[in-house]
Amino acid sequence: MFNRVALVGIGLIGSSLSHVMRREGLAQEIAISTRSPETLERARKLNLGNEYFLDAAEAARGADLVIVCTPVGACEHVAKTIAPVLAEGAIVSDVGSVKQTVLDQMKPNLPETVHLIPGHPIAGTEFSGPDSGFASLFEERWCILTPDENSDPEAVKKLQRFWEKCGSDVEIMTARHHDLVLAITSHLPHLIAYNIVGTANDLETETRSEVIKFSASGFRDFTRIAASDPTMWRDIFLHNKDAVLETLGRFSEDLSSLRRAIRKGDGEMLFDLFTRTRDIRRSIVEIGQDTEAPNFGRYSKDEQ
Amino acid sequence: MFNRVALVGIGLIGSSLSHVMRREGLAQEIAISTRSPETLERARKLNLGNEYFLDAAEAARGADLVIVCTPVGACEHVAKTIAPVLAEGAIVSDVGSVKQTVLDQMKPNLPETVHLIPGHPIAGTEFSGPDSGFASLFEERWCILTPDENSDPEAVKKLQRFWEKCGSDVEIMTARHHDLVLAITSHLPHLIAYNIVGTANDLETETRSEVIKFSASGFRDFTRIAASDPTMWRDIFLHNKDAVLETLGRFSEDLSSLRRAIRKGDGEMLFDLFTRTRDIRRSIVEIGQDTEAPNFGRYSKDEQ
Repeated sequence: MFNRVALVGIGLIGSSLSHVMRREGLAQEIAISTRSPETLERARKLNLGNEYFLDAAEAARGADLVIVCTPVGACEHVAKTIAPVLAEGAIVSDVGSVKQTVLDQMKPNLPETVHLIPGHPIAGTEFSGPDSGFASLFEERWCILTPDENSDPEAVKKLQRFWEKCGSDVEIMTARHHDLVLAITSHLPHLIAYNIVGTANDLETETRSEVIKFSASGFRDFTRIAASDPTMWRDIFLHNKDAVLETLGRFSEDLSSLRRAIRKGDGEMLFDLFTRTRDIRRSIVEIGQDTEAPNFGRYSKDEQ
Repeated sequence: MFNRVALVGIGLIGSSLSHVMRREGLAQEIAISTRSPETLERARKLNLGNEYFLDAAEAARGADLVIVCTPVGACEHVAKTIAPVLAEGAIVSDVGSVKQTVLDQMKPNLPETVHLIPGHPIAGTEFSGPDSGFASLFEERWCILTPDENSDPEAVKKLQRFWEKCGSDVEIMTARHHDLVLAITSHLPHLIAYNIVGTANDLETETRSEVIKFSASGFRDFTRIAASDPTMWRDIFLHNKDAVLETLGRFSEDLSSLRRAIRKGDGEMLFDLFTRTRDIRRSIVEIGQDTEAPNFGRYSKDEQ
């Protein structure tokens, strides 16, 4: 499908792309770059590509598809680095969780002869690094592409087919809209999880160890999300600031009402809210976005 | 181990107790009561006990162990109902997520000839009702007992052995301490999950359906917790009000700092917090309180 695909950054998403491209035969050759010599060496040991570089430009040279798989804060630097060597007609994309910032950081720095089409596969785990990838990560998961009004429809179609061959369903929307939706479905939940785990972490030592011991009563679910990559998430909050703050404002208002209901002993308000929230879970399981097994199937050996 | 065990309430915990008592031969006979005729009929169809009653007193009559498996708000009513028929020396316990309120509601209403020892198995799923139980629910999970200073040590030991035979590790602490620890590990996480799912639920219809569609980016984890039983959780918040409000206060303070860090673009503060929170996850997995499989092992078929 592509002659040379450059993966700039080789963490969970980059390494998963390498595995699935190999399995599906989507690239004649895969060029890998990362700024970290240790990570590059690890990628080489894992045989994730055909060529390995510390310099993104070396990997991008002559590629017909470049996918930036770094934290979103690095996009501008990558664009400036690869701009001089990009082949005419190359597609440049990424996998970051914020999309407007990718357009803002990269577009002014890339030649007009290439196609910039930001992308975001809604897939991942709490693990990171080149060892954490696997070929089926994108299967039955959404991938959102956010071309702008100047994007070449043929290039968009080609990138769409690429993600479909990786197993994803593709949705196209504007970068702004993506950033609003993800602020609610992803960025706010991560912020809340980081915050609650942080609150527990700050407790005195004895209580902290009890929190860990009795975490199965609810807390442990939050710790999984709060174990996600720190650099990646720092960049997401810095680059989707407005949408995150707006969403957090709504969340905080609702939390104030809930606190008041508890203080006043308003059981009816609590019961009403706790009943409504059940429906959303049902919808998510129905459309196949989560398992219906109890406890996410954690202990499926336990079930009758 | 016991001649007659009465289960007052036959939801997830009650039915799981029935399964494990049968498997381990812990009771000669199991008497079941619930106020709901439909649930009682269902319990009978599932063959969860030897006798079935709408009246808790009928089940408790002659029992040497009574376990109240209702929402915590029903404890006082149950105590008044069963008090006149309780056998001398019987152990009366429960499984609720708040413990001081169980002592307060039940102790004044029970005869001094019985042993009240509140209990709380840290085990459950997001499902409820008599169909949702399974025998291994309590395996390798903690069960906390909260006797008071007047409790008979022999009775406490017997109840401890009972839970150990159900597969649990038993920990003994005061009711007040239990309620503080659980406010952090369980009640606050549930409150936050209910709140965030409620915030999403209130969005305009189009955005709401996108939230469901793209929920795999983080949100779906919260919906599992927010699908828990509404009556049970209403009662928990009403009966552990002070500890929950105190914990919520700390959480809200921390959230304000986090919001300020995002607004100011303080990447260092964010990175620092997101790094510290990783350690807690590691500790939880190390002591066996959660699986180390990515995504809770949701998609274990996917992994390489």
